[in-house]
Amino acid sequence: MDKNKIIVFDTTLRDGEQSPGCSMNTEEKLRVALQLEKLGVDVIEAGFAAASPGDFDAVSQIAKTIKNSSICSLSRAIENDIKQAGLAVSHAPKHRIHTFIATSPIHMQYKLKMTPDEVIKRAIHAVQYARTFVDDVEFSLEDAGRSEIPFMKEVMDAVISAGATTINLPDTVGYRLPNELGAMVKELSEFANNRAIISVHNHNDLGLATANTLAAVLNGARQIEVTINGLGERAGNSALEESVMAIKVRKDVFGDLYTSINTPEIYATSRLVATITGVEPQQNKAIVGKNAFAHESGIHQDGVLKHQETYEIMRPEDVGVIKDSTLILGKHSGRAAFKDKIIQLGFDTVSDEELNIVFERFKNLADKKKDITDDDVRMLITDEALNHDKIYELVGLQISDCSSGMPMAAVSIKYEDKIIKDAGLGDGTMDAIFKTIDRITGFAGELKDYKVISVSEGKDALAKVTTRVSFEDGSQSFVGHGLSLDTMQATANAYLGALNSYLSQKNRLTKNCGHQV
Amino acid sequence: MDKNKIIVFDTTLRDGEQSPGCSMNTEEKLRVALQLEKLGVDVIEAGFAAASPGDFDAVSQIAKTIKNSSICSLSRAIENDIKQAGLAVSHAPKHRIHTFIATSPIHMQYKLKMTPDEVIKRAIHAVQYARTFVDDVEFSLEDAGRSEIPFMKEVMDAVISAGATTINLPDTVGYRLPNELGAMVKELSEFANNRAIISVHNHNDLGLATANTLAAVLNGARQIEVTINGLGERAGNSALEESVMAIKVRKDVFGDLYTSINTPEIYATSRLVATITGVEPQQNKAIVGKNAFAHESGIHQDGVLKHQETYEIMRPEDVGVIKDSTLILGKHSGRAAFKDKIIQLGFDTVSDEELNIVFERFKNLADKKKDITDDDVRMLITDEALNHDKIYELVGLQISDCSSGMPMAAVSIKYEDKIIKDAGLGDGTMDAIFKTIDRITGFAGELKDYKVISVSEGKDALAKVTTRVSFEDGSQSFVGHGLSLDTMQATANAYLGALNSYLSQKNRLTKNCGHQV
Repeated sequence: MDKNKIIVFDTTLRDGEQSPGCSMNTEEKLRVALQLEKLGVDVIEAGFAAASPGDFDAVSQIAKTIKNSSICSLSRAIENDIKQAGLAVSHAPKHRIHTFIATSPIHMQYKLKMTPDEVIKRAIHAVQYARTFVDDVEFSLEDAGRSEIPFMKEVMDAVISAGATTINLPDTVGYRLPNELGAMVKELSEFANNRAIISVHNHNDLGLATANTLAAVLNGARQIEVTINGLGERAGNSALEESVMAIKVRKDVFGDLYTSINTPEIYATSRLVATITGVEPQQNKAIVGKNAFAHESGIHQDGVLKHQETYEIMRPEDVGVIKDSTLILGKHSGRAAFKDKIIQLGFDTVSDEELNIVFERFKNLADKKKDITDDDVRMLITDEALNHDKIYELVGLQISDCSSGMPMAAVSIKYEDKIIKDAGLGDGTMDAIFKTIDRITGFAGELKDYKVISVSEGKDALAKVTTRVSFEDGSQSFVGHGLSLDTMQATANAYLGALNSYLSQKNRLTKNCGHQV
Repeated sequence: MDKNKIIVFDTTLRDGEQSPGCSMNTEEKLRVALQLEKLGVDVIEAGFAAASPGDFDAVSQIAKTIKNSSICSLSRAIENDIKQAGLAVSHAPKHRIHTFIATSPIHMQYKLKMTPDEVIKRAIHAVQYARTFVDDVEFSLEDAGRSEIPFMKEVMDAVISAGATTINLPDTVGYRLPNELGAMVKELSEFANNRAIISVHNHNDLGLATANTLAAVLNGARQIEVTINGLGERAGNSALEESVMAIKVRKDVFGDLYTSINTPEIYATSRLVATITGVEPQQNKAIVGKNAFAHESGIHQDGVLKHQETYEIMRPEDVGVIKDSTLILGKHSGRAAFKDKIIQLGFDTVSDEELNIVFERFKNLADKKKDITDDDVRMLITDEALNHDKIYELVGLQISDCSSGMPMAAVSIKYEDKIIKDAGLGDGTMDAIFKTIDRITGFAGELKDYKVISVSEGKDALAKVTTRVSFEDGSQSFVGHGLSLDTMQATANAYLGALNSYLSQKNRLTKNCGHQV
């Protein structure tokens, strides 16, 4: 064990995915996992295998695919949860089970309705049982931030003896200040005395998650649980990009402590997660926000021109933001220039087949739009990747609307090599599009969220539409993506994308249901 | 002076407005200032009066309107800046000039190209000159976070003797960790020895702004410079809502320290700033994000049902988030119920005339949409307030589009009691709408940003469109808002709104240009 290495445990696919509107299907989770591996994350918490067949499937698929990061599943301190977690992660070369029980008085009394002794017994049994599946067991003292230190020491002794290799101390409700969290970690880290790795998992309810994570690192924690863009329950978790960059930028304070994160992959990872979930970081989000490196005021611009470090403590390229890109694409750009660009943007694993499809879309776009920006290219590739499962495919769309009339849409869709056409009315054009698609496909989707952003500036900017739609029992919602110069066309594609995503998951689960236990 | 009071200095209208895409016109700034006054902010930094005639106008208007908060203008340590600031704020019952110069070696050498002695002389002169206009002078040591302590002490001695009443120590580049910032504030606060109030202004480049603000408060700072939603240059500033709520929620740590913020106004303020700027907080933003109080996972939901505090450290209503609203509006709701609702939502200053207009819009909406949510009502009122300057007004819109055809828009607009109609083509329907409007009005707007969000769930949700458009010389961009069940109609209204905003500002400046000096 390297005493200076800070293990980065990413829980975007578990705690992040738990946040409202961030649910992803297996295909999407797999893409995020591959990017997290490229980013150099040490442990990927891939899900909560026992939560549903969909979750089990996702953890298993990720475990079968990822080679360099350890794959972990969360599980309550319950035998069946642990078993599901153990089975799901078993396919990965490196794997871990993460089990937990709450240790705060308020959680034990009101939520668990258990005595402290019962909690310890349950914890010991959970860790022992987990060890029958894997050697690497993480145990979390849920709500550690509000737990009593003497009791936490008892629990730690017990679970370390039972075989836990990492002890996680979550500030579950985001309650602690950095100096308090640092003091707690210091005491418990000294108590652990290298028998286990001390980890922290901080929530951001008061905006302090990253400060708490850094305070923990300075006081002995050697694993940090983080998410991309700070996603997670309520106000989210400590953002990977902030903690990792703070440790790097403030080397004068953190000394030999380091992470293995390949920081120039940070921006690409952030964009992928934002695109898939449809949850955009606020434009002034630290490190990955659209404005994180923008200088608006004349005073600042002047300063940066005179000497970059007057207003910049890190270079945009350190986190993969390419400023002043020299390679601008247009209608005369050829395949080679396009390929160079996508490699420069970090899409170095795109297959020839994908390249062909995206290049064709690029040429069509370049016919209508003068300058193709980096963001345009990034979006084209991501859109194609996210929409490759074309069960229903939009062929044609025609709309007609008067402000005081009857908005109408005519839609033609390809399904199993047949073209189906129909028309319908709605309250507004979008509504007419959605209702006509429902009429053709026979699925009545319920729209949970709808967003449009312009990818770049100008009236001819690409519109990126994100829809979140639930189908049938409504227990889960599916994200669909559409990208077009025409917002209406992008809308129709996004709505169909959500349906395709739902159907793909349904098909896969029907096919796989025999494998689960 | 109350030793326990933490003065809240809000710089949403200065540092926040400086962030790309957040520029506001005078009318919008005035609305934000009125809400900040209602929120209980002690000092409103209303702008940088010398930056432009538009900025001078905005600061003056705010100074003429606000009674309870002190109005402040930023100014470089330059006579003309200070004079403009002094003139602009003079109308307010309570007012302040905020002047600054950089004190870090890197800023003095590369940006200012001045020796430390020259910097001190300039600082003294600036404060003395400012005192000829006002009694309340704040002096900032720009880039204090990277300045040397002994030099800062020299500067502080000099400017306090010259008459500065508040000394601000900005972490201009967001570089410091909380323990470092706390130590710096402790030393300089002890050095000031109550001769001036110590203030902090933290940037969020590493995600630590709020933690730094709290560390400063615990170490002697008695003023915090913050913004709503954490807006500001690059990654923004410390968010008002986070610092204020942390001090309140963690009373066990902060003891008798308090702010005068009326916390149930936090959410309304956040929504107003988000609506006006078009910059939405990330859904997992602490305190004010859409999900800040949402519990997605079954485990958390179960816990909260059993005992609220298992997963909640503050109640949503403490910050003005109304959960489980009992008053649902629909088509049969009358004027009285509607009025109750808008008062419940905090719009208690709406005039009868405004109420009539919004009520009519509400009735029209209720004819088409079954349940009218709180967010729908909030948006209707804000939209009406932001679009009351109807120089150009949309009367009719008709669109027609085929996927491989020629998207077309027909638009009719009212201008000075005349109706003007025309039609045009575009690359996509939106583009056709924009181009046809340009054709009618004669202004060629350049679209800088375009966003659509759905206000609530369902296919029949209201679409809220935000456009940012620049006109003529392109030096400033203007935000326009549109709200409709029909996204296209909302788009046309938003684009016209930006044009109206531009023309209003132009008219006002032409009228006022004689008053400026």
